Amino acid sequence: MHHSSVTLDPAFRVAAVDPRVYGSFVEHMGRCVYTGIYEPGHGSADAHGFRADVADLVRELGTPVLRYPGGNFVSGYTWEDGVGPRENRPTRLDLAWRSLETNQVGVDEFATWARGVGSEPIMAVNLGTRGVDAARSLVEYANHPGGTRWSDLRRSNGFADPHGIKLWCLGNEMDGPWQIGHKTADEYARLANETAKAMRRVDPSIELVVCGSSNIRMPTFGTWEETVLRETYDAVDYVSLHSYYEQRGDDRGSFLASAVDLDRFIEAVVATCDHVRATGRHRKRINLSVDEWNVWYQARFPGEENLDWAEAPRLIEDEYSVVDAVVVGSLLISLLKHADRVKIGCLAQLVNVIAPIRSEPGGPAWRQTSFHPFALTSRHGRGTVLRVEPIGPSYETAEHGEVPILDATAVHDEETGAVTLFAVNRDQYEPLTLDVDLRSLPGLATAGHVALFDADPEATNTAANPDRVTPTRQPDTKVADGRLSVRLPPLSWNMLRLTS
Amino acid sequence: MHHSSVTLDPAFRVAAVDPRVYGSFVEHMGRCVYTGIYEPGHGSADAHGFRADVADLVRELGTPVLRYPGGNFVSGYTWEDGVGPRENRPTRLDLAWRSLETNQVGVDEFATWARGVGSEPIMAVNLGTRGVDAARSLVEYANHPGGTRWSDLRRSNGFADPHGIKLWCLGNEMDGPWQIGHKTADEYARLANETAKAMRRVDPSIELVVCGSSNIRMPTFGTWEETVLRETYDAVDYVSLHSYYEQRGDDRGSFLASAVDLDRFIEAVVATCDHVRATGRHRKRINLSVDEWNVWYQARFPGEENLDWAEAPRLIEDEYSVVDAVVVGSLLISLLKHADRVKIGCLAQLVNVIAPIRSEPGGPAWRQTSFHPFALTSRHGRGTVLRVEPIGPSYETAEHGEVPILDATAVHDEETGAVTLFAVNRDQYEPLTLDVDLRSLPGLATAGHVALFDADPEATNTAANPDRVTPTRQPDTKVADGRLSVRLPPLSWNMLRLTS
Repeated sequence: MHHSSVTLDPAFRVAAVDPRVYGSFVEHMGRCVYTGIYEPGHGSADAHGFRADVADLVRELGTPVLRYPGGNFVSGYTWEDGVGPRENRPTRLDLAWRSLETNQVGVDEFATWARGVGSEPIMAVNLGTRGVDAARSLVEYANHPGGTRWSDLRRSNGFADPHGIKLWCLGNEMDGPWQIGHKTADEYARLANETAKAMRRVDPSIELVVCGSSNIRMPTFGTWEETVLRETYDAVDYVSLHSYYEQRGDDRGSFLASAVDLDRFIEAVVATCDHVRATGRHRKRINLSVDEWNVWYQARFPGEENLDWAEAPRLIEDEYSVVDAVVVGSLLISLLKHADRVKIGCLAQLVNVIAPIRSEPGGPAWRQTSFHPFALTSRHGRGTVLRVEPIGPSYETAEHGEVPILDATAVHDEETGAVTLFAVNRDQYEPLTLDVDLRSLPGLATAGHVALFDADPEATNTAANPDRVTPTRQPDTKVADGRLSVRLPPLSWNMLRLTS
Repeated sequence: MHHSSVTLDPAFRVAAVDPRVYGSFVEHMGRCVYTGIYEPGHGSADAHGFRADVADLVRELGTPVLRYPGGNFVSGYTWEDGVGPRENRPTRLDLAWRSLETNQVGVDEFATWARGVGSEPIMAVNLGTRGVDAARSLVEYANHPGGTRWSDLRRSNGFADPHGIKLWCLGNEMDGPWQIGHKTADEYARLANETAKAMRRVDPSIELVVCGSSNIRMPTFGTWEETVLRETYDAVDYVSLHSYYEQRGDDRGSFLASAVDLDRFIEAVVATCDHVRATGRHRKRINLSVDEWNVWYQARFPGEENLDWAEAPRLIEDEYSVVDAVVVGSLLISLLKHADRVKIGCLAQLVNVIAPIRSEPGGPAWRQTSFHPFALTSRHGRGTVLRVEPIGPSYETAEHGEVPILDATAVHDEETGAVTLFAVNRDQYEPLTLDVDLRSLPGLATAGHVALFDADPEATNTAANPDRVTPTRQPDTKVADGRLSVRLPPLSWNMLRLTS
């Protein structure tokens, strides 16, 4: 049995949680849109062709923002194809995923649907094959009230009110040689800056995310951000980072410590932002958008060049285990620990494609294992992140060196006084006793404890057995003398709700 | 009356204090060495010509390390001139300060004297007019046991044991166009790297400080550090920063907030170090050496080009006021707050030249106002810095924007359990009530309170009135219900010793 301890004290805070850290991502890829959120022939489909069963699960998941329409897809996207009468919309070759794109869902449908499930759309513009003109036209189409070429087109398409999309991504993964229209850092920096300026002239109220690195192992990591931020510092608000994790071979110990890698990635990007701030004599700070992150077994993907042209093919439909769900919960802890700089996060993606929600064409929709820690963190992780500096044992990993067995953060809801502690026990075999010093929060008396774990860490949820893995309620614990002691099962994600 | 509050909790720590943060600096400049620490004809002089009255004050000041022999001076220095029989040592033109350098004190005398006053020498090598060869020879002279050209010369000069100098500076302010042999960042980076390699080959146990920026307003600030660290990252341990402060016109509010500027400078250099670490895929961290800092009324200095050639002239003998002492105390708080990265600090300089100690030729030595906060912080600020996140009012400054009225940090001595809180009230007119939450340190019962302030904030100490300004003991305060409440006078530096 391991022992770790943490102290919670509202005098020591990281920052307020930006709810947009609980965002997700809808890409025109595989079956995320078609037969994912949208399937006109489905029994649950609404008047617009969107599946109500999936929409219900999205609401339950709790995603205040949804990034759209890519991803690699956006780097070849012609947004005008996706507006106007459906019967006139062209089918296009999507060069990113070697798929046929029918354009039956476009910006109007997506923005409307997103609002219906309680989310704000985040829109990405195509800086691969297109540039300033297409981007500023899309802002005008989406956000300008009317009386101009593009806003009047929106109105004539049946959307009298502007969509009012506030957050925009200046392309996607432009540092990646796999990207359609990949650019050098200098090329992208200039294009992003001029595009940002034009988009802001259409709508000065928008916020902009500039592309950082596709992952921390990119050979250009760090220098890319520096070059791009030097050029665009005044024109943008956030820099993006993308990061995917998977278990390599049988090294589960390293995989369970994935959040340590995400911590380092985030802290390195913060250092780069602040270095550019200092040398450029800027006063404002650039914050971070982790706008693609998840567990993704990339080793199992044959590569887009090995695919046949197809409409809504089954791409990267990873089935998540208990271990994967624990890692997803731990990655969310990393985002919260950096709440002072990480303001946006997008679990990639929402449905079917490496997603918390799965659906079958004409069939059911269900929650993957990773759905649960996400939904609970999004629901209860609102308020102010407290500094948590755990004391306890660590273990050696091949990939990340020495790593603490306990991963934890806490969020204080100043309105209700409740504190929610999120904690992962990374040990695969032994439970961990967690002692929580609550003397600075004397109102808190009881902890409701929910845990995700299983005797079989490889267990998954399937269409046939959709609730095989769910969080289970653990016995409530009482605070005694300002202290709480709770047992975290081996290889588990835990949520403790501390209330009066 | 203002009110601020802080919470002290050993569960929330910054880092252990490196005692070297309380270093000072002896440059061959003005009267720092000659008639400062060294004056053979003085009534208190020891057998080696060093003043015992000054040495006593240095011991009382508490400087574990002393940087030597420059400063700008080192960029033209020929160290071989300062060793061997004194009568053979040449007088040289010192181009940095337009002075005559008699070389009566050199590395042997300084290293011996420094140890005698309880300090370790930090030695700077000349990378202005000289380079790899002179530097590696000096390491051999100082640190190699014997049996070689330079170590045997040391032995024949009467110093059988190596000086064992552990910490070395790779030149001084090489980013400054005023520097003799000033270099571009690329030139300096290459020279520093090759010099570091050669010095380490002589003595692998040494630690090395590479030159950062001479101040945060240098046009090359940030890019200089980046270029230099990219080249030297693996070869060095610390990067330097220098920073001086003075009151401009009657804007005392900005001057009292000087530590905010130092905080920003430190945080920007940390960001640059970590940016280079990330892009270079380095694992180690570069730490910071604030190896020149103080209050310095540079506006009063006529400039070295306006001086006549002279031996030990009166240069930059600033007389410090109560306000200056409060700012010095506040700058020390800034160094402590960054104890996780700032490992070395050198108050510049030790005697006479912008110094905490003053001496007159053939006359007395005395403590300037700034001596007091420094000596008390050095003596009691040992242990682990606790996170202190004050809550309280702020005020608007012309130079630094909105600034908290309270500046504070705390150091926990884990052996004795005592906590020392250092606090500055920046308000010139109103006292400040400071509430300290000590519930996580239940053993502490009483606070001994020492404060530096005066009805006349311009008051100074002089040869005639050397104790005009001294810290005064304030009434002790008792801890009640885990809380302490104490009154900080207007414009004051305070030390609260919390003991059981």
